[in-house]
Amino acid sequence: MHFTSEQRLDDGVLAREFTLGEIPGTLWTPESAESAESAESAVSAVSAAPAPLILMAHNNGLPKSDARLVARARHSVRRGYAVASIDAAGCGDRPRSAAEEQARADLRRALRAGEPVDEIFESLVGPLVDKAAPEWRVTLDALLSLPEVGGPVGYSGWTALGIRLAVTEPRIAAAGFFAGGYVPHAQREEARKVTVPLLLLLQWDDEGNPRQRALDLFDAFGTEAKTLHANTGGHTGTPWFEGEDAGRFFDRHLSQHGGQGLQGPR
Amino acid sequence: MHFTSEQRLDDGVLAREFTLGEIPGTLWTPESAESAESAESAVSAVSAAPAPLILMAHNNGLPKSDARLVARARHSVRRGYAVASIDAAGCGDRPRSAAEEQARADLRRALRAGEPVDEIFESLVGPLVDKAAPEWRVTLDALLSLPEVGGPVGYSGWTALGIRLAVTEPRIAAAGFFAGGYVPHAQREEARKVTVPLLLLLQWDDEGNPRQRALDLFDAFGTEAKTLHANTGGHTGTPWFEGEDAGRFFDRHLSQHGGQGLQGPR
Repeated sequence: MHFTSEQRLDDGVLAREFTLGEIPGTLWTPESAESAESAESAVSAVSAAPAPLILMAHNNGLPKSDARLVARARHSVRRGYAVASIDAAGCGDRPRSAAEEQARADLRRALRAGEPVDEIFESLVGPLVDKAAPEWRVTLDALLSLPEVGGPVGYSGWTALGIRLAVTEPRIAAAGFFAGGYVPHAQREEARKVTVPLLLLLQWDDEGNPRQRALDLFDAFGTEAKTLHANTGGHTGTPWFEGEDAGRFFDRHLSQHGGQGLQGPR
Repeated sequence: MHFTSEQRLDDGVLAREFTLGEIPGTLWTPESAESAESAESAVSAVSAAPAPLILMAHNNGLPKSDARLVARARHSVRRGYAVASIDAAGCGDRPRSAAEEQARADLRRALRAGEPVDEIFESLVGPLVDKAAPEWRVTLDALLSLPEVGGPVGYSGWTALGIRLAVTEPRIAAAGFFAGGYVPHAQREEARKVTVPLLLLLQWDDEGNPRQRALDLFDAFGTEAKTLHANTGGHTGTPWFEGEDAGRFFDRHLSQHGGQGLQGPR
């Protein structure tokens, strides 16, 4: 893992770009946590405990530099978390295979023509999940080797990838999923094996994502402690307070393992 | 409105029993708000602003003294609210008419026999709402005449009554509904006219309340800013953190009108 650049942001967040082999990523941490690495005195090194990590996996169509993703990451860091995102193979700004380009072209054409898109989504998203999951796991290994980053780990965002990671990666202790994206058949089946606490966020009027499918998915998850938050509005209309709610969800499930700014029941 | 007893609780909550004609009620307030009434110096009277009011209407089968209801009330008072509940006609410990007794007996028999209960619920709950709503409005008038209680007003609890109040009572500015109860046809229709911000709380596996009916009701509400929170578990299994979430919901919608301990977006 090589850090290629760093930026100190005005809210006390340190944003560092990194590469791990072919994988480009960003790590956002509280500046106080970063000081653990460079501290000269034992006192300040001890005072900066490792920040619990949240993997923030974007929907495959967005690069990790997307403004909404960056805002979510900074919000979580202000709550005391380390947040990491990567552009996995075929995602974000990474090069696409001929098959991926073809599937995306087919998808645009079918959407314009008002034709069914499930089969095309299946052929596009299924392989993306299969290729992205191992890259995220390699990244997780590297991130947890940093002294300023701790575990267990939260997962936030892209549902299909998150299901795969939650059932294959025991270090993930809680997952916040956004229901606005196609979930392949394989992950709809795997959902029954998900047992970590989860929060599913649904936009009730999401134009491209059938509501019933999201409700069926929520029902299918094997987790006992699962919560659904639904709000009126379209795909991009998630209200600001859901960011706060997601933060409190992670606080409840990751807080015993360190981190700053964490809240408990009164 | 006559206060018949008062109790100072160890969390800074003042609980006062009152009667208003035949209606028995309880008002919970922060002790600091109550001091506005009895304060001898102008300074302390000014410093205690009226607390925004939440009407906490229990499901018709429970008395207002139920331990879970009292705990909810005290939680809201600790957030800076005044909370009131009454036993409306036919509810809680109030005497029941022969027709109400008959309907409740029919209901028990039908539930034991596994027979359909919608028609019986309709004949029981419809008239209860019709009789309870004017009693709640009279109570609201009396409560808002107290110097320590302010408006606009939040509503929390019994869905069917809350729908009726939300469409007939312009002083209600936000409503938190619990989906675990029968909603008569009349209120399912009235739901389209509800336009205040609302939070609907659903127990996903509620034994006696069909999930789809709750989802249809959520869809029907005329409100633009509506949020659904669903959690796994049966009727009484609502997780503790939903109390906090409901508090923040009221903070968002009632906070500009005064009150203590209120939170805004960061």
